[in-house]
Amino acid sequence: MTALTLPVNSFPHLIIVGGGFAGIELVKHLSGKPIRVTLLDRNNYHTFQPLLYQVASGGLGPDAIAYPLRKLIGPMTNIVFRMAEVQRVDTLNKEVITDIGRFGFDFLCLANGAQTNFFGNKELERNCLTLKSIPEALDLRSQILQEFEKAINKQQADGEMPELNFVVVGGGPTGVETAGALAEIRKNVLPSDYRELKANAMKVHIIEAAPRLLSAMQVASSSAAFRSLQQLGVDVRLNTSVQAYDRDSGLLTLSNGEVMQTNTVIWSAGVKGNILEGFPSEIIGRGNRYRVNAFNQLEGLPNAFVIGDVALMHEDPAYPQGHPMVAPVAIQQAHLFAKNIMRLIEGKPMKAFSYFDKGSMATVGRHRAVFESFGIRLHGFLAWWGWMFLHLMLLVGYRNRLIVFVNWMWNYFTYQRAIRIIIRKYVPKPE
Amino acid sequence: MTALTLPVNSFPHLIIVGGGFAGIELVKHLSGKPIRVTLLDRNNYHTFQPLLYQVASGGLGPDAIAYPLRKLIGPMTNIVFRMAEVQRVDTLNKEVITDIGRFGFDFLCLANGAQTNFFGNKELERNCLTLKSIPEALDLRSQILQEFEKAINKQQADGEMPELNFVVVGGGPTGVETAGALAEIRKNVLPSDYRELKANAMKVHIIEAAPRLLSAMQVASSSAAFRSLQQLGVDVRLNTSVQAYDRDSGLLTLSNGEVMQTNTVIWSAGVKGNILEGFPSEIIGRGNRYRVNAFNQLEGLPNAFVIGDVALMHEDPAYPQGHPMVAPVAIQQAHLFAKNIMRLIEGKPMKAFSYFDKGSMATVGRHRAVFESFGIRLHGFLAWWGWMFLHLMLLVGYRNRLIVFVNWMWNYFTYQRAIRIIIRKYVPKPE
Repeated sequence: MTALTLPVNSFPHLIIVGGGFAGIELVKHLSGKPIRVTLLDRNNYHTFQPLLYQVASGGLGPDAIAYPLRKLIGPMTNIVFRMAEVQRVDTLNKEVITDIGRFGFDFLCLANGAQTNFFGNKELERNCLTLKSIPEALDLRSQILQEFEKAINKQQADGEMPELNFVVVGGGPTGVETAGALAEIRKNVLPSDYRELKANAMKVHIIEAAPRLLSAMQVASSSAAFRSLQQLGVDVRLNTSVQAYDRDSGLLTLSNGEVMQTNTVIWSAGVKGNILEGFPSEIIGRGNRYRVNAFNQLEGLPNAFVIGDVALMHEDPAYPQGHPMVAPVAIQQAHLFAKNIMRLIEGKPMKAFSYFDKGSMATVGRHRAVFESFGIRLHGFLAWWGWMFLHLMLLVGYRNRLIVFVNWMWNYFTYQRAIRIIIRKYVPKPE
Repeated sequence: MTALTLPVNSFPHLIIVGGGFAGIELVKHLSGKPIRVTLLDRNNYHTFQPLLYQVASGGLGPDAIAYPLRKLIGPMTNIVFRMAEVQRVDTLNKEVITDIGRFGFDFLCLANGAQTNFFGNKELERNCLTLKSIPEALDLRSQILQEFEKAINKQQADGEMPELNFVVVGGGPTGVETAGALAEIRKNVLPSDYRELKANAMKVHIIEAAPRLLSAMQVASSSAAFRSLQQLGVDVRLNTSVQAYDRDSGLLTLSNGEVMQTNTVIWSAGVKGNILEGFPSEIIGRGNRYRVNAFNQLEGLPNAFVIGDVALMHEDPAYPQGHPMVAPVAIQQAHLFAKNIMRLIEGKPMKAFSYFDKGSMATVGRHRAVFESFGIRLHGFLAWWGWMFLHLMLLVGYRNRLIVFVNWMWNYFTYQRAIRIIIRKYVPKPE
């Protein structure tokens, strides 16, 4: 594997691994500064993960939530991008080893986020669908529509059909939003698109191990989300977890012994950090995250930093167990790290990170959302419009905001999820 | 394989194979008529093929040009849709055999269009990219972007780089439009997205076997398209065809003995009809199309009709060699067949088809198009706006028109092709 030629000058070289919320915030703040930056990502685009469930449910196309990283860094002359899968870090020789070659660095910033956590259960990992990337969202969209097509070809028995039984595992924001979107498909799309199916033949279940949904939010918000889902006809199971799922038979076994039959299990019950090879195991903490100090610096590796979901910091007094794995933490850490790296280069002391929580929100469906910010708690109509407005603001680039806005307005006035197309058939992973 | 249960009543049952321009025009006109209709398509959406090259070149997303067939037939109570791959027709027993089962019919209408024609050259078929479906367009988009990423990782020699050498084979509308789009990427996207590449390192070639481009149009239009492509820096080769292309070495051999090196050959040099199993070979004519009479009826099979690209009719006096394989013919044949099938059922005589040619057009790039209609011939600015307006009108559904319009306006004012994202990597077919 050859060393790659990159533009050289006398400034120190920082490699950023990952173009998620943290990575793109960081390059924005380092643009024009006396530092050379190489941004690495396996994809050539940034994914706006909060709206993946809308791609899966046919409300948005991938291009509405993906932003080309080269478009972002185009005007930033001190920053280059390489599409590369990082395989390993050689901390001794200060090199990142990728599928396209080695990159030497003076400083390293890992911002490569999190992946779905199946907590070691290989059967669930093989048989469940997930929602952490655009291809996964498109696979889920295809799977949902393929099951509808299968159902319509079947002689309909009186019992539940596994084709039309959709199970969402995990009652966090992704799970709640996905279950809500499925319930709206049942209500608004199925009756006209699949006239031959019996009304209400489709069932949506959400399974949560904790005693309430959205456990990161206040109890009142959890209750509001619960009621909204029930109003949409979703079967909500709390204090329940998944024991086993066999795709061939479709049998899903719950912790209470109950068995359901379903062809579609969507796993959104947990995430864990993406750890690269080349680091001592002592610095990996809970949730498969790198332990960092208050400056997001790795213990014993003063040139290596970690920001975003994959960073585990115990030093922030309000978050002794580490920060939640959410976009605002990633963005704030990136913002501070952009300052800290320049201070470090200039020989000045770095500043400690402290998370400023502006609130959180989740949407269940049309006019149904929960919203908490600075002591204000909303649910219903206003919370829903607030959720839409804030997500439009958070999207990267004016084009994506415009396209999402146009699609949302269309969906709002027509009650449709217009993109009911199977571009590539979903084929389950082989055993 | 079991017979499928479909809603039954006393009306005769028509099966339409294919939801292209012909198929969807036909269901629109049969909606509410005393006939039962089953529309079959391998996809659950209609593809607006004229804009596939814009999906390939990152100007539009798939959802802008795909229209869900179930949305179309939703309100049409006498029409059902099945997503099915048709394998064979049993004309004796009046059954269509598909991957999901058998469908009995009283009348059959084949409207399953055309596919890329490699004229029997298996090497070209294996090694070239094509533009007949949305997955193919997305593959081409990925391939183009992947080659850019490869090029930027290479030490740049002085000669041409096979990664940045793009060859379009075929100078019909698809070829001309694709070459023009690639040339605009070179001009407007490459300099900012790939600052490290040498200016003009990318080359676009178009190879046409005939003495002129757009040979279905007037000579003046061909000349205008030729000049437009040259102004955009495209290398246009006329009277030239492709002899061989080896993907491993990248060597492309032309009929004049010249050899180019390229990683991307886009084949748009011909189409042929999609013929199903179960028909006698005598009724297959030139271009792999079914010979039909003036009523689009198959010889010796009075219950079977063929419309659109795959129909070869010699009876239209102005078109003794058969009609061009274009959307307007398909739409007009569908419109007439909708009347003829009802006349046939009512015992009335059918009417002969006669194509009314409203003109043709092709676009090369921004403010560059050619347009011919009722003796009027335009090229340049006005033709380009006319092309855009007519394509917006031809698109199926208000949502797709709106989304295409918004994307086009964005692209027009920013000079961008915004969707420069590799959702799924293109992996060439194995040898």
